[in-house]
Amino acid sequence: MRWLKVTLAYDGTDYCGWQVQATRRSVQGTLEGAWTRVTGETTRWIASGRTDAGVHALGQVASLPTRSALPAETLQRALNASLPTDVRVREVAEAPSGFHAIRDARGKRYRYWLQDGGVPDVFCRRYAWFLPGALDLAAMRKGASYLVGRHDFRAFQASGSTRKTTVRHVRQLSLERRSCQMAELLELQIEADGFLYNMARNLVGTLVEVGRGKQPPEWVSRVLLGGRREQGGATAPAHGLCLVAVEY
Amino acid sequence: MRWLKVTLAYDGTDYCGWQVQATRRSVQGTLEGAWTRVTGETTRWIASGRTDAGVHALGQVASLPTRSALPAETLQRALNASLPTDVRVREVAEAPSGFHAIRDARGKRYRYWLQDGGVPDVFCRRYAWFLPGALDLAAMRKGASYLVGRHDFRAFQASGSTRKTTVRHVRQLSLERRSCQMAELLELQIEADGFLYNMARNLVGTLVEVGRGKQPPEWVSRVLLGGRREQGGATAPAHGLCLVAVEY
Repeated sequence: MRWLKVTLAYDGTDYCGWQVQATRRSVQGTLEGAWTRVTGETTRWIASGRTDAGVHALGQVASLPTRSALPAETLQRALNASLPTDVRVREVAEAPSGFHAIRDARGKRYRYWLQDGGVPDVFCRRYAWFLPGALDLAAMRKGASYLVGRHDFRAFQASGSTRKTTVRHVRQLSLERRSCQMAELLELQIEADGFLYNMARNLVGTLVEVGRGKQPPEWVSRVLLGGRREQGGATAPAHGLCLVAVEY
Repeated sequence: MRWLKVTLAYDGTDYCGWQVQATRRSVQGTLEGAWTRVTGETTRWIASGRTDAGVHALGQVASLPTRSALPAETLQRALNASLPTDVRVREVAEAPSGFHAIRDARGKRYRYWLQDGGVPDVFCRRYAWFLPGALDLAAMRKGASYLVGRHDFRAFQASGSTRKTTVRHVRQLSLERRSCQMAELLELQIEADGFLYNMARNLVGTLVEVGRGKQPPEWVSRVLLGGRREQGGATAPAHGLCLVAVEY
């Protein structure tokens, strides 16, 4: 058996998320369908994480076993020819035997885009959460500083989740201004060894409370230490989130 | 009567163009519908130019007369609340009596995005023309240099057009690299005192022939002087084009 590592980009707007669902258009189902057309195989694709409906990817990684003998570049080209334009295969690479996109992941980087104020940018509306008023970037950076490092992030995990451990190491959390077409966006980047379910979006929703001046930066630390989901900010909308890269 | 100057942005992907058509979704029809909902008036909106199906705008300008007494900012907010998210009113301003968006325009700036090579960027696919191979930027710049200045641009006008004069002044034509999400784009900006029908897209299609190495830069000069549409390159696709600004 041959194992492949496939790097993917997708615009999540018109998908129900990564995971196959019976009646809706999923990224996984779209890729598995293209794979069958290209190779004749029916193969389950495993992604590093199952992105939610509306979440985008620049560097999602999937693993799969295959008996196809087609060269990696040929597979990439044939898949892209068979896929809709909102999903692209960026790379097909040979992987070690048994390569598993979830189990072998050592870290991930997400990006979240916010537009704070002005007229909503028509060209970024699918990729940025629009908030009517300006956010206090300095306060958000201070709040974010409490989250960097190895902590128990249970306060930022979707309620009802069951994970063996809720300790994660946030290696980096940056906030920068970045221009889109009509507006300046706020780009939040977060890199960690792993993410709990909804963790990125819950961190963003909590930092936005600080940016809006509803809470002081130190409140982020209290939410983190309190360990209870209901103390933090609301979950930020899916469409601002993008999985940028997965590290192996 | 009060006259308004309205500055607009739109993602042209899902429109049949500016102009109202009986059975299809137009930008003009969408705006006029919102206007009626906001003010109760049935008013014809005039744009600086009727952008084609798929063409975008960052700074389209429309003129209209109104009897509404609502403040400009209130009109802007109410229109945006009533419009779909792919059309935004950037500004509503008072205009001199009789202001006419076509007649009074003194210049326009268009932008055209090309992606040359790599994997088509999923986030720019609606806004950039994808070409599989790298373009020769230096050759394109040389070709573009022949177009700057006051010339008879009849060779770049859609065949069958009837305009009194086909002389236009191209004030600036620049080509620069610009990063998108997954790729580097080639951004062409062109500013002129006016544009013939399809002129921007025909200029792009002609410069692309040079960028592909199919024709030398000097050929652009021969096409210009020859004055015959069929000598130039094909019309570039609409979706790469964006009306950036109109000068009054």
